[in-house]
Amino acid sequence: MGDGPLLDRRSAVAELGAELRALADLVTRTEVGADVLRDSARRLHEVAMALRERVRSTAEPASVDDLRGGVRMFNPVIGAGNPIAPPMRIEIGEDGAEGWCTLGQIYEGPPTYVHGGVSAMLIDQLLGHAAASTGHPGVTRDLSVRYRRPVPLNVPLRVWGHVTGVEGRHISVVGGITTVSEPGLPLVEADARFTRLRPDQASRLFSGLASLDAANPDVAHD
Amino acid sequence: MGDGPLLDRRSAVAELGAELRALADLVTRTEVGADVLRDSARRLHEVAMALRERVRSTAEPASVDDLRGGVRMFNPVIGAGNPIAPPMRIEIGEDGAEGWCTLGQIYEGPPTYVHGGVSAMLIDQLLGHAAASTGHPGVTRDLSVRYRRPVPLNVPLRVWGHVTGVEGRHISVVGGITTVSEPGLPLVEADARFTRLRPDQASRLFSGLASLDAANPDVAHD
Repeated sequence: MGDGPLLDRRSAVAELGAELRALADLVTRTEVGADVLRDSARRLHEVAMALRERVRSTAEPASVDDLRGGVRMFNPVIGAGNPIAPPMRIEIGEDGAEGWCTLGQIYEGPPTYVHGGVSAMLIDQLLGHAAASTGHPGVTRDLSVRYRRPVPLNVPLRVWGHVTGVEGRHISVVGGITTVSEPGLPLVEADARFTRLRPDQASRLFSGLASLDAANPDVAHD
Repeated sequence: MGDGPLLDRRSAVAELGAELRALADLVTRTEVGADVLRDSARRLHEVAMALRERVRSTAEPASVDDLRGGVRMFNPVIGAGNPIAPPMRIEIGEDGAEGWCTLGQIYEGPPTYVHGGVSAMLIDQLLGHAAASTGHPGVTRDLSVRYRRPVPLNVPLRVWGHVTGVEGRHISVVGGITTVSEPGLPLVEADARFTRLRPDQASRLFSGLASLDAANPDVAHD
């Protein structure tokens, strides 16, 4: 089997993710009557029925993903298929990473500003990519976030991260959030340490894919 | 106007939030064909059209909310109306707070485990409630999170926070995440400092509600 069906399915997953994201945004902003809200809920229930026809288990990776190749379409920060994700767009550099996104109403904490926990979530993801730019992906060991100024909704944001040190299996990273228009004005600052996975840990974590290889060779070899 | 219409609208908002949450979970787990995904996207687009008929601006609070009364139906962690929110259920104690939720596939970071940024988001929200148990809500000043063990998906979780000190406008809080079944085994540990809002800051932050009072007295006085 060629790449066609897999790429087409990835594209359909991203389209559905985008529609669901738009809908989630509207649900937090709409002021239509309770009757329209309830009618919408009923129609969503019907859509859910169709999607329920074939559902994977938690242990089985999504067929559109490629864990070893770094394709995670349902990641809650950068996955185009996950309606929770803005999604943040990321570029990996030589000793760091940079990300961009604009956050709507759904991410609101204090009125008209981004929820502090959402800022922490974006940073955790971006610093993880920065740490992985050393060639060894790892898991977050600790993360410290300092909130300097409120982060505005509906304004293009920039999230950055740079590796400051590598010691044994530990990678130290600093980073932060600014607006795209004022990259010199820190809104949020952060530092974190990541721990590289040992080969046996990595293989256990990605063992789901090994089972998928055996069960579904057409998809796995795409 | 009595409370009836407002309470009914709050209930409809929560019902729509629950359906959208169920749908978002299914979207990350379904393995139905690309044609069904695209048909679902088309149907969601139609639902969105109905909700778009009346939409509030970012500066205008949701009519179902009561900012000064602490009702935030679209909070991204605890809001029943926000599909991003698990939602976490919270109880406020004398010098702290406790929260409970179960996180599905949509919150996955490393395969079969909760995204580290999602854990940070839950903690930021819960520690904020713990800080507010002193009688003065504040904004997060800094937050440190230490990841001790991976947090499992689909398992009832407990998030806790205790006030450890109040100094001037600053409130110090510690907390963490455990499973409900093993409350003595820390998965994530955290500490944070919150800064109480000065009266002028609080009034600026909640000024949106003041405009709503004037523009929409029926809703505001419910």
